Amino acid sequence: MDKNKIKKLLEEVRKGNKSIKEALTFLENLPFIDLGFAKIDSHRELRMGAPEAIYCMSKTTTQIIQIIEKMKNDSNILATRIPEKSMKEIEKTYPEAKLYPESKLAFIGKFPEKTIGKVIIVTAGTSDIPIARESEITAKSMGVGVETFFDVGISGIHRILSIRDKLKEADVVIVIAGMEGALPSVVAGLIDTPIIAVPTSIGYGANFKGIAPLLTMLNSCAPGITVVNIDNGYSAGFFAAAVIKKILKQET
Amino acid sequence: MDKNKIKKLLEEVRKGNKSIKEALTFLENLPFIDLGFAKIDSHRELRMGAPEAIYCMSKTTTQIIQIIEKMKNDSNILATRIPEKSMKEIEKTYPEAKLYPESKLAFIGKFPEKTIGKVIIVTAGTSDIPIARESEITAKSMGVGVETFFDVGISGIHRILSIRDKLKEADVVIVIAGMEGALPSVVAGLIDTPIIAVPTSIGYGANFKGIAPLLTMLNSCAPGITVVNIDNGYSAGFFAAAVIKKILKQET
Amino acid sequence: MDKNKIKKLLEEVRKGNKSIKEALTFLENLPFIDLGFAKIDSHRELRMGAPEAIYCMSKTTTQIIQIIEKMKNDSNILATRIPEKSMKEIEKTYPEAKLYPESKLAFIGKFPEKTIGKVIIVTAGTSDIPIARESEITAKSMGVGVETFFDVGISGIHRILSIRDKLKEADVVIVIAGMEGALPSVVAGLIDTPIIAVPTSIGYGANFKGIAPLLTMLNSCAPGITVVNIDNGYSAGFFAAAVIKKILKQET
Amino acid sequence: MDKNKIKKLLEEVRKGNKSIKEALTFLENLPFIDLGFAKIDSHRELRMGAPEAIYCMSKTTTQIIQIIEKMKNDSNILATRIPEKSMKEIEKTYPEAKLYPESKLAFIGKFPEKTIGKVIIVTAGTSDIPIARESEITAKSMGVGVETFFDVGISGIHRILSIRDKLKEADVVIVIAGMEGALPSVVAGLIDTPIIAVPTSIGYGANFKGIAPLLTMLNSCAPGITVVNIDNGYSAGFFAAAVIKKILKQET
Amino acid sequence: MDKNKIKKLLEEVRKGNKSIKEALTFLENLPFIDLGFAKIDSHRELRMGAPEAIYCMSKTTTQIIQIIEKMKNDSNILATRIPEKSMKEIEKTYPEAKLYPESKLAFIGKFPEKTIGKVIIVTAGTSDIPIARESEITAKSMGVGVETFFDVGISGIHRILSIRDKLKEADVVIVIAGMEGALPSVVAGLIDTPIIAVPTSIGYGANFKGIAPLLTMLNSCAPGITVVNIDNGYSAGFFAAAVIKKILKQET
Amino acid sequence: MDKNKIKKLLEEVRKGNKSIKEALTFLENLPFIDLGFAKIDSHRELRMGAPEAIYCMSKTTTQIIQIIEKMKNDSNILATRIPEKSMKEIEKTYPEAKLYPESKLAFIGKFPEKTIGKVIIVTAGTSDIPIARESEITAKSMGVGVETFFDVGISGIHRILSIRDKLKEADVVIVIAGMEGALPSVVAGLIDTPIIAVPTSIGYGANFKGIAPLLTMLNSCAPGITVVNIDNGYSAGFFAAAVIKKILKQET
Amino acid sequence: MDKNKIKKLLEEVRKGNKSIKEALTFLENLPFIDLGFAKIDSHRELRMGAPEAIYCMSKTTTQIIQIIEKMKNDSNILATRIPEKSMKEIEKTYPEAKLYPESKLAFIGKFPEKTIGKVIIVTAGTSDIPIARESEITAKSMGVGVETFFDVGISGIHRILSIRDKLKEADVVIVIAGMEGALPSVVAGLIDTPIIAVPTSIGYGANFKGIAPLLTMLNSCAPGITVVNIDNGYSAGFFAAAVIKKILKQET
Amino acid sequence: MDKNKIKKLLEEVRKGNKSIKEALTFLENLPFIDLGFAKIDSHRELRMGAPEAIYCMSKTTTQIIQIIEKMKNDSNILATRIPEKSMKEIEKTYPEAKLYPESKLAFIGKFPEKTIGKVIIVTAGTSDIPIARESEITAKSMGVGVETFFDVGISGIHRILSIRDKLKEADVVIVIAGMEGALPSVVAGLIDTPIIAVPTSIGYGANFKGIAPLLTMLNSCAPGITVVNIDNGYSAGFFAAAVIKKILKQET
Repeated sequence: MDKNKIKKLLEEVRKGNKSIKEALTFLENLPFIDLGFAKIDSHRELRMGAPEAIYCMSKTTTQIIQIIEKMKNDSNILATRIPEKSMKEIEKTYPEAKLYPESKLAFIGKFPEKTIGKVIIVTAGTSDIPIARESEITAKSMGVGVETFFDVGISGIHRILSIRDKLKEADVVIVIAGMEGALPSVVAGLIDTPIIAVPTSIGYGANFKGIAPLLTMLNSCAPGITVVNIDNGYSAGFFAAAVIKKILKQET
Repeated sequence: MDKNKIKKLLEEVRKGNKSIKEALTFLENLPFIDLGFAKIDSHRELRMGAPEAIYCMSKTTTQIIQIIEKMKNDSNILATRIPEKSMKEIEKTYPEAKLYPESKLAFIGKFPEKTIGKVIIVTAGTSDIPIARESEITAKSMGVGVETFFDVGISGIHRILSIRDKLKEADVVIVIAGMEGALPSVVAGLIDTPIIAVPTSIGYGANFKGIAPLLTMLNSCAPGITVVNIDNGYSAGFFAAAVIKKILKQET
Repeated sequence: MDKNKIKKLLEEVRKGNKSIKEALTFLENLPFIDLGFAKIDSHRELRMGAPEAIYCMSKTTTQIIQIIEKMKNDSNILATRIPEKSMKEIEKTYPEAKLYPESKLAFIGKFPEKTIGKVIIVTAGTSDIPIARESEITAKSMGVGVETFFDVGISGIHRILSIRDKLKEADVVIVIAGMEGALPSVVAGLIDTPIIAVPTSIGYGANFKGIAPLLTMLNSCAPGITVVNIDNGYSAGFFAAAVIKKILKQET
Repeated sequence: MDKNKIKKLLEEVRKGNKSIKEALTFLENLPFIDLGFAKIDSHRELRMGAPEAIYCMSKTTTQIIQIIEKMKNDSNILATRIPEKSMKEIEKTYPEAKLYPESKLAFIGKFPEKTIGKVIIVTAGTSDIPIARESEITAKSMGVGVETFFDVGISGIHRILSIRDKLKEADVVIVIAGMEGALPSVVAGLIDTPIIAVPTSIGYGANFKGIAPLLTMLNSCAPGITVVNIDNGYSAGFFAAAVIKKILKQET
Repeated sequence: MDKNKIKKLLEEVRKGNKSIKEALTFLENLPFIDLGFAKIDSHRELRMGAPEAIYCMSKTTTQIIQIIEKMKNDSNILATRIPEKSMKEIEKTYPEAKLYPESKLAFIGKFPEKTIGKVIIVTAGTSDIPIARESEITAKSMGVGVETFFDVGISGIHRILSIRDKLKEADVVIVIAGMEGALPSVVAGLIDTPIIAVPTSIGYGANFKGIAPLLTMLNSCAPGITVVNIDNGYSAGFFAAAVIKKILKQET
Repeated sequence: MDKNKIKKLLEEVRKGNKSIKEALTFLENLPFIDLGFAKIDSHRELRMGAPEAIYCMSKTTTQIIQIIEKMKNDSNILATRIPEKSMKEIEKTYPEAKLYPESKLAFIGKFPEKTIGKVIIVTAGTSDIPIARESEITAKSMGVGVETFFDVGISGIHRILSIRDKLKEADVVIVIAGMEGALPSVVAGLIDTPIIAVPTSIGYGANFKGIAPLLTMLNSCAPGITVVNIDNGYSAGFFAAAVIKKILKQET
Repeated sequence: MDKNKIKKLLEEVRKGNKSIKEALTFLENLPFIDLGFAKIDSHRELRMGAPEAIYCMSKTTTQIIQIIEKMKNDSNILATRIPEKSMKEIEKTYPEAKLYPESKLAFIGKFPEKTIGKVIIVTAGTSDIPIARESEITAKSMGVGVETFFDVGISGIHRILSIRDKLKEADVVIVIAGMEGALPSVVAGLIDTPIIAVPTSIGYGANFKGIAPLLTMLNSCAPGITVVNIDNGYSAGFFAAAVIKKILKQET
Repeated sequence: MDKNKIKKLLEEVRKGNKSIKEALTFLENLPFIDLGFAKIDSHRELRMGAPEAIYCMSKTTTQIIQIIEKMKNDSNILATRIPEKSMKEIEKTYPEAKLYPESKLAFIGKFPEKTIGKVIIVTAGTSDIPIARESEITAKSMGVGVETFFDVGISGIHRILSIRDKLKEADVVIVIAGMEGALPSVVAGLIDTPIIAVPTSIGYGANFKGIAPLLTMLNSCAPGITVVNIDNGYSAGFFAAAVIKKILKQET
């Protein structure tokens, strides 16, 4: 459309209907969106195969439903941090939606059938599973292969050792841990796969709602670990899927 | 060697020189290192093509030189956070070493001639360049293609906009910024390439030696950003190279 | 009145009814309020055309109603941070009041018909709108022109770019953002209008209830940005209106 | 120049030397800088009458001199946070420069002769003067009238009371304070002029290098106060001058 | 009683019924409480005329009532931080108790009729009154004269100026403030009476539940200010009364 | 079982059914768990005589009951941080369980009849008792002698002095304190028994949910104090019992 | 002088040389300092018998000497936080000055010969002595009796117990401690004298330059403790002397 | 001596030279030190076999030498945190002293020849060795067996796995780590020996001088870990030795 606007302008210039000065002025003041920015944005979603994501935390149920309505025909939708009330409304309105109430998550649409690459998601404890689910569904919705191993924290270190070979098969490993958050460092000591670490707010006292594991992960003595925000399973899943798709697309 | 030990044991078992019970006990108590762990470790370096890294901050010049001596025939060496005095000694001892004094960095060895993939490194300001260099040399030493764009911070937003197309070519973009650290968010708004954000301790007052940009990056509203420790250019470069090599190796 | 007191004193001195020493003592001990301080205070409100503001957070409904009752004939009233219960009582008691429940805000009175200057208020997300409303109503109640643009955050950077020309028309721009709070820096890179940045407590994890965007804004590498307290839309609106009125009044 | 490029393109289109499709592609891919962004940037400096500012903290003396050399014919230059060594070099190289060593500041160029508006800068203590000087020179270099009152902190409250009438004459008041940083709140209780508060790192113990006054200022119970980063006299001066120039230019 | 024990021992020694070695052993191992420590403790309460204080925050209603029961015949009782449920129970059980529900405070007993000295308590806002009441009742219960002035914060500085002469009459002034907590500094600039500053958790955003005013008060540039914990009206009242009684008792 | 696997392998090797190379490969890749890691883990519990501990905070009632069901025949069970709802369910399901609702604690099983060593647990206030109970039950369940002294804080220092001789009898003393947390330092000044300090979140204002006593304890000027996490009575009890059992077992 | 101005005005009014309106205007606009504020200020110093205090930390040697010169005939002078260089200059210029280099303190003048009241200053360690000296000299210079006990920290609790009777004689006790800062709480448990606690920055690790003892002191479970800023011996000494003089003056 | 004083008193009582009332008064006021407290203190050192420890950080060389002089005949001496200058002086004055300059440590005296128990000290990196040495020398000086393993951090996890059997032999394991401080958690997952964790300030960026590993260790999901202050090797060594000696002495 924007492209059409410019095309018409150029035609007018050629026809002599528009002076060069006029055209120049128009082009200089052309809103950036008209240069294709808006498209880039939706293109990005398309190219990445990522669903539209709605961060629901401070939105009303009405707002959330309206946004879903507007987008659901064009795109898969991933709604995160859904308040309890809104979750119930989504359940009623979209019976076909896949709901993950413990993760405050809903997916409306279809997961891609074909996947490329492989992300492995491990959690230190069972309490970290809701965050892991956020990573899992995000990556899955972007067409990447996902496998999960829960409750393999280091207090019983054999648990993580026993899946070492599995972990080596992954393109990227997402390690999710609360408490002291040492699991990513340990995993990084075992395998050479790049790790995305997700600190969770699980713990008490000097855990400070996730600051302790966040600092642990940032300070890891093992290279090859990057970190996302506390409890941000979504971002870890997105990055993991995006990096796989980006690298494979460019090379093939 | 360790393998040989086990081999000999098995031969003794076959010959009947060692009872099965004896062998069982030996195997159960076998130090883990004898199962190949130590090799795994060096294998990892070999497979990743990563140089041996020496973190020099709290080591004496003598210690640093000793470690280099011991490793320099087997591996490339990347020495980071080199104190001024030690830097001079390295310069004297290894005239062939590549030195980056502003980054407190030295590379002893040869960069791989053939590279795969492409990492682009951008900095917000000129003051962030020493950290960027750490990322650059690390990634380069691992055999990954690297391109750098310095001083493209958002106070003159056209600077980053003008290299947008370049950035799209990268497999991974490393964005390095001090002050308020907003550049990664802006870049994430422009391109669909995964971003590794490096906060730097450049700034004053409420910058708190890098805490401000660290928080900015962790809280980015754009998905697809992961973060490493303040001033940790090494880890960003390592992750970027590792993720490219991991993904490409598995698929090809 | 106070003035009259002093006038009478001086007349008594002239008439010789009061000794100079007596007058001197009186003047020395004259409570400062009698020199006009109290009036200055209400004058200030009048000159600025600002409504009386009631900060309701730790006040009882009864207290709030009493204060409104006492002031409502002399002045417009802006009640901020109204607890839910009190909001309902205000609604019942003053059906003519303009209520903004999501902003916990009520305005009792009439907005000035004539406005001078122009404040533009932008928010990064939809969740920031309640804070923006506080700025909007405050500035509007002081007789300043206000325009708002919501949800133009940098994750889709074309949104802010597309209103760049609009923003240039403003005397002052108020930029409101939670999460990582990078929008003010970006806006400052686009236009030369002074910016008042308002961090909001929207976000999670390492957002720390608004500390992350607060630090981002304080550390902005772009000059021409000043900052108010987390979620303090009122103060931003007040400052913006006050600075316009102050500067224009003095010059015209 | 960029404009010329587009002009030529349009002429080629008119002449039929370039197909519309070709032109379209060119325009779509036109680097943003070619649309005038770079100019906008320098235009901004010109329109604001602000000098080019060089933040010298992490730059080498050579870098600083090079930047000055490149810009000094086109623009006034304000160099801030100059390291001691570089200051000496600037003194030697530019004998005409105005140097403020205690503020680590240098101004190379001519202050505008005609000024508009009036900024008053007050400091709580004598130790805050170097920061105040940064504000003063910045505002002065932008062509705004400046007056300063130093050491009028609240421990002797009569000092600030005695200049109350003066303060009322200002368009904007910059209040600079370390220790507990209460002066802006007190000034805001005395006058109706908008206040920009600058916390300084002067103090000890629980001052935490300026965090205490920063928090004080952000939490001020008086409306009409905005805050800049700790010790950031430059940003306060810039904002004050910018807001005066912006508002007066648009109205006159 | 303890005294009697020792007396009896000495009598036994004199009579020769107990060997000196035996007595020596007994005395060496004498529990300290028997040397009068326990009495000292209750003596202290008696000498200071302070009521027994019960900090109720983490006690059950049953525990609170039991403690009151045990002490109420021997002493006045001041119960602080009473949970809502317990408050109701106290009201029912001790109809004669003086209750201050907004301060979560109850006084069971009689205030001393005769008072010495004078404490003046001022608050910055109306929201600080519950804390002030804690100081007031504590000091009053210890037999010290108390006067209160509420809502005299610095946003309307004439309010505090107008009571300056009153404040001078006090032996000690308790200044209670939330938000930015600047009132103690201002009062210290006006009078030469020692000040006890009480930060309150009133405020929002970067107030951080009282940390902002706490830091302000600790960093006050005016000497003669000491500080107690956030919201700790009890301790301020206790110190003020104790210092008056201590000093006057020793001298008269 | 795992042992059997290896045994069978060795037998196959002896019989010549398996080549040495095959066996070697198998052994190299043997999951670590097969080397006995998993057993080690349960062995540890057995050797230490510690009950299985379930941290219930973020588990559902169903999950908790399932875990208890699975383990209750093989081991004593200690469930900590039990949510209220789950506590009721445990009460109903296991009428024989020992419940400590104020400590959110349940013990299912039998305390060892014979104990060795002695741990003394002291608390500063009555509010610290629930945490103390966690230490007490943990240590008791591991077969160690426990004695408790509650409410012996330093505001009445004779209380702690009076039990000094008792404290000397302990092998390890656990000192639990909130508020300013000074009791461990005082106890360390009185006796030569090693001390484990537990900070609690009891207190208000600048207590910061236990950070104040945590820092106090970490900074104690007395040697021989180690610290566990805020409110972590479980870990203190476990360490105390473990150190006694470890040392006594090795020597006897 | 100011008084004279007003007197002359009143005389002019009486004589009819000045109209009442003229006088009124003059009085209304009279700078506050002319109403006696400046005198109040110096009066305060006189009444309190406090020396002029110069906070030297961020002043040049020249500035310090100039201030001393200007004041030394009218008042005793207490210079605090003197940089090393300035200390030497003061020594040279004022050979009669009393210097306390470890406390960065100088007193120029004469200590009052007659003293009233008694302040006792105790320190936990020898490292706290320089801060104690600041308190001591400040109080002494204000004419209050001072006694000191150093190195009586709680790691050897008998040290503080052995001076218990001495402490009881004081009107006010100043307790100075670094590390964990528990001494004030212990002293408060021993005596009924009001305590001013001074945290010092002595310690390491989690002491955080005095934050640990500051929090300890603020959270003390003993009432009757107030706190000043970290290392602020001056303010503690000033408050102690001021409160004694204020209370005794008003009653006698 | 003190004992003698009381003995004499009792003799005087028996003889009738002293009235019972007189004796009673004397005994009641007897300074606590006379009851044996001072002796207890030195007894403690003797019983524990611990050397006198001098914390040298804020002491002058003269003070340090004086203290050593006074004590060196009665006791072994352990001087910690010795400033460089003082270290040289100690070297000169006590040529027989054992010096550990990298640990800022000196031991003057003789290590006990016979040892009991066994402490194993492990460090994550080579940079942690100076802190480990502090633990080692402290424990050794108290007569406990010590073994050390350096640089066994988790980035190469086989290093710690390979010494697992060794670690099991210890009575107590001290684990020292900087960076992210995850090693204690990992060790706790491998062995059942109680662990004392020492965070070090080794690291950069978000390590925050040891806060990151401190939090990691406090939040460890493995029970049986206690923590000492950042870099406090002395306290860890002291606790480890003390707990072994205490437990073994009581039982044997």
